[in-house]
Amino acid sequence: MPHAAPRSPLDAEDLRARVHKVIDAFLESQQPVLRGVGDELGPLLDALVDLLQGGKRLRPAFCYWGWRGAGGDDGEEIVTAATALELFQACALIHDDVMDGSDIRRGLPSVHRRFAMLHRAAGWSGSAETFGMGAAILLGDMCLNWTDQLLHASGLPAAALARGRPTFDVMRTELMAGQYLDLLEQAIGAGSVERAMRVVRFKSAKYTVERPLHLGATLAGRGPEMYAAYSAYGLPLGTAFQLRDDVLGVFGDPAETGKPAGDDLREGKRTTLVATALARAGEKQAEVVRRHLGDPALGPSGISQLREVIVETGALAEAERHIDELTGQALAALDQSPVAEPARGVLAELAIAATARRG
Amino acid sequence: MPHAAPRSPLDAEDLRARVHKVIDAFLESQQPVLRGVGDELGPLLDALVDLLQGGKRLRPAFCYWGWRGAGGDDGEEIVTAATALELFQACALIHDDVMDGSDIRRGLPSVHRRFAMLHRAAGWSGSAETFGMGAAILLGDMCLNWTDQLLHASGLPAAALARGRPTFDVMRTELMAGQYLDLLEQAIGAGSVERAMRVVRFKSAKYTVERPLHLGATLAGRGPEMYAAYSAYGLPLGTAFQLRDDVLGVFGDPAETGKPAGDDLREGKRTTLVATALARAGEKQAEVVRRHLGDPALGPSGISQLREVIVETGALAEAERHIDELTGQALAALDQSPVAEPARGVLAELAIAATARRG
Repeated sequence: MPHAAPRSPLDAEDLRARVHKVIDAFLESQQPVLRGVGDELGPLLDALVDLLQGGKRLRPAFCYWGWRGAGGDDGEEIVTAATALELFQACALIHDDVMDGSDIRRGLPSVHRRFAMLHRAAGWSGSAETFGMGAAILLGDMCLNWTDQLLHASGLPAAALARGRPTFDVMRTELMAGQYLDLLEQAIGAGSVERAMRVVRFKSAKYTVERPLHLGATLAGRGPEMYAAYSAYGLPLGTAFQLRDDVLGVFGDPAETGKPAGDDLREGKRTTLVATALARAGEKQAEVVRRHLGDPALGPSGISQLREVIVETGALAEAERHIDELTGQALAALDQSPVAEPARGVLAELAIAATARRG
Repeated sequence: MPHAAPRSPLDAEDLRARVHKVIDAFLESQQPVLRGVGDELGPLLDALVDLLQGGKRLRPAFCYWGWRGAGGDDGEEIVTAATALELFQACALIHDDVMDGSDIRRGLPSVHRRFAMLHRAAGWSGSAETFGMGAAILLGDMCLNWTDQLLHASGLPAAALARGRPTFDVMRTELMAGQYLDLLEQAIGAGSVERAMRVVRFKSAKYTVERPLHLGATLAGRGPEMYAAYSAYGLPLGTAFQLRDDVLGVFGDPAETGKPAGDDLREGKRTTLVATALARAGEKQAEVVRRHLGDPALGPSGISQLREVIVETGALAEAERHIDELTGQALAALDQSPVAEPARGVLAELAIAATARRG
C-alpha cells in the first residue's frame, strides 16, 4: 500500500480508549462546577461515570472515522469532538429508560432506578420513583448541555465547528423526533413493517451511523464530497445495526446485552421483528402475541412462546437475511466510495462489528 | 440627558415583541426538519408554539439589557442570542412539570398532560400518562438542543460566541444542579431556611437574572468589567424574584399566575416561605403543615388553613420585607454600577416588574 500508511489492527480499540480518556477528563472538569452548587451533586456525576464505563462508542467511532475517511488528520481535537456524541447518547439512554420504565442498562440499574434506590435507602419522604425519575431527567438534561459544550471545547477551529453545526443540529432534532415516532408507534400499535422501518431510519440508522459520519466529514471540510458516499454506507449499516438490536432484544443473552432476557417483549416494543411476525402469523400465533407482548409481568414461559412465534413465522430468519443483505450493501458502497485508508478498512470492520455483535 | 439617548418607555415591551418574533421564525424553520421525519411531529411543535405564546421573557430581557448596559449596540443578533434563553426556559418548564406532576402551566394543560389527553382522545393503547411523559421529555430535549442551535445561529461573530460560551455552559449546568438540589430538599424535608435559600440561589437567582446579564456582558466583550456589578444587582434581584414566586405559589390568583390556587402547597414545595413558617410555628400550627403540605388532594379548606399559618407566623410579612430589602439592594447596586443608559433605566424598571408582579 504505497499510497497510505498501513492500518494497525488496534486502531478501533485504541480509539475506544482515547474516547474513554476524554470522557473521564471532561467529567472531572465538571466536578468543581457541581461542587460549587453543593456536595450533594456527587451521586449524579457518579451515576454518569458508571454508565459511561460501558458502551461500544460507535457514534464517536463513526464521527472520527468519517473525519479520517474524508482526509482529516488524526488529532486530539477530532477525538474530543467525536466524544461529544457519547454524551448525547448518554442522554438518549437515560431518558429512554425513564420513558420505557427499563430497570437495567449495561448490566447496572438504570439511572432512575439507581436514584429511586438511593431515596429508599436514605429513608427520604415522598415517592422514591418520582425522585428517581426527576434525577434521571435532570442528569439526561445535563448530558445534552454537555454535548455541545464538549464539541465546542474540542479545540477544533471555529470555522470547522461552524461548518459542522447544521449536521450536528439536524442529527439532534432527528433523534428526538424519531424517538417520538417510536412512542407513537407503540401507542398506535398499527405495527406495519413499513412504519417500523421509518422509526429505525431516524432513531437508529441516521443517528447512529450516517449523521456521525456526516459530522466528521463536514468538520473536516469535505461534507459535500463525502455526504452521498457516507449515506450509501451509513443508512443500510445503521438499519442493520438496529435490526441486530431488535434480534438481541428478543433472543440476546443478558450476560452479553446487559439487559434482562426478553426486555423488548416485556416493553411491548413494535420492532420490525415483531411487525414481520405479526404480518405472517396465523390466528393462533397472533393470539399468543396479543396475550404476551407488552405484559409487564412477562416471565420465561411467555418469552419462550413469543420467541417460538417469531421463529416459526420465519421473522427471525427474515431479519437475519435482511441484516446480511444490508451489511453487504454497506460494504459494497464503501468499496466504491472515495473513503481514504486507513478509515476504509476500519469502517469495513465496524460494519461487521456493529451487525454481528452479541451484545 | 446630553450623554445618552432618551429611553423610550416602550423599550421593554418592544423587546418582548422582538423576542416573540425570533421564536416564531425559529420554530417555523424547524417545521421542514420535523416534517422530514413525519407529519405526526406536528403536535410536538404545536405544543411548543402554545407554551411560548406566554411568558415574561425575563431571561432574554436580562441578557439583552446586560449586553446594552455593557455598551453593546442594539441589533437583531443579540436579540436572537438572548431569545435562545427562552428555549432553555421552555425545557426547564416542560421537564419541571413532569417532575412535579403539574397539570397546568401558563393557564394551559402542561405538555405531558396535553399529550396524555391526545393519547386518550385517540383511543391509543398503553398508558396515556406514560405516553404524555415521554412526549414531554422529548419535547424538552428538543428545546435544549435548540437552545445552543439558536444561540449559534444568532449571527453574532464567532469570537463573541466563543467568549460567551463559558458563561452559557455554567448557567446550564447550574440550573440542572439547582433543580436536583430542589428535588433533594423536597425529599429530605429538612426544611431549614438556609437550605431553601441555596436552592433559590442556583435555581432562580443565578439562572434567571445574574447569568443572563453575565452572558450579555461577555458576548459584548466586557465580561470582566461588568461581572461584579451585574452580580451585585442580579443576585438580590433574582432572589427577590423567586421569593415573589413563592408568595404567588401560595397566595396568587390563578387568573394571573396561570396555575391552580395553592399549587406549591399541594406539591409540598419546601420554599423559604414554608421554611420560615415552620421555623416559627407552634405545635398546633406545625401539625396543620404536616397534615396538609404535599397532600395531592389538597382542597380549598386545606389551602386556607395553610395560608393562615403562613400569615399568622409572620412568614408572609417576613417574605414581603425580604423582597423589599433585596429589591432595594439591587437598585442601589445598579445605581453605583457602570451600567450605561438606556439599560440602566430599563433594568431599574425590570427590578420592579420582576418583584411586584402578580402573575
